[in-house]
Amino acid sequence: MNESLLAVAREEALLGKAEGGVPIGAALFTLDGRLLGRGHNRRVQDGDPSLHAETAAFRDAGRRPHYRDTIMVTTLSPCWYCSGLVRQFGIPRVLIGEARTFHGGHDWLAENGVGVTVLEDEVCVGLMTEFIKTRPELWFEDIGEEL
Amino acid sequence: MNESLLAVAREEALLGKAEGGVPIGAALFTLDGRLLGRGHNRRVQDGDPSLHAETAAFRDAGRRPHYRDTIMVTTLSPCWYCSGLVRQFGIPRVLIGEARTFHGGHDWLAENGVGVTVLEDEVCVGLMTEFIKTRPELWFEDIGEEL
Repeated sequence: MNESLLAVAREEALLGKAEGGVPIGAALFTLDGRLLGRGHNRRVQDGDPSLHAETAAFRDAGRRPHYRDTIMVTTLSPCWYCSGLVRQFGIPRVLIGEARTFHGGHDWLAENGVGVTVLEDEVCVGLMTEFIKTRPELWFEDIGEEL
Repeated sequence: MNESLLAVAREEALLGKAEGGVPIGAALFTLDGRLLGRGHNRRVQDGDPSLHAETAAFRDAGRRPHYRDTIMVTTLSPCWYCSGLVRQFGIPRVLIGEARTFHGGHDWLAENGVGVTVLEDEVCVGLMTEFIKTRPELWFEDIGEEL
């Protein structure tokens, strides 16, 4: 099932790229594969630095009493902000497209009981490799680092 | 200066309470006290679980190349999500109204080099004490815990 879950997040990343934004996508599903919310980074599109992909998907899912039955799927290793989201809301599983171009907080999540799966998805790697090369200033802004 | 910075976050918390929402407020300032953004939890008002107070203030501040010159002020100890925000974006200081009714990730921030100040503000303590007592289901939803 991993591939079909990742396909939704990857599609979001491609939408973000087509819009001229940061090409990272995410989706929140129930553990049995029902889509709850999906989204992509909207820093450029909305001028909103808080809308990392995982936050966009979480927001799209709307209010829920808890997240014990969910999985967060993201095209890229989640940064500390989005890792904190996963930990705080007790999301028990994370599926990550790739962690080669950026290594966020997924080890910390695993240490704290989250089931983490990292794929080596070449489409995800390619999207970020090209993005970091062509728009380094935007990428470093998105992760709060100075170029 | 701490008191005048906290006053802005506290006012946001009171606005949130008046709207029937989760009474937590935050504001992002430059280290020399210029207001960049302010906001309060909007779970109830917008049906948006991602809008914790710190994220609302961060969003309100808009895009910035970096945050090395900023301080996040919040009425309550930041949860893992909002602590992750502070860490990822390199916000070097956090001023917290109180950490008595909820203990989030501020120790982790301090361990990772963030300058953390926790006040014992009685207005902040009173707001949360009343809220947790009268709306426990909403509070636990807001931190992703089951009642």
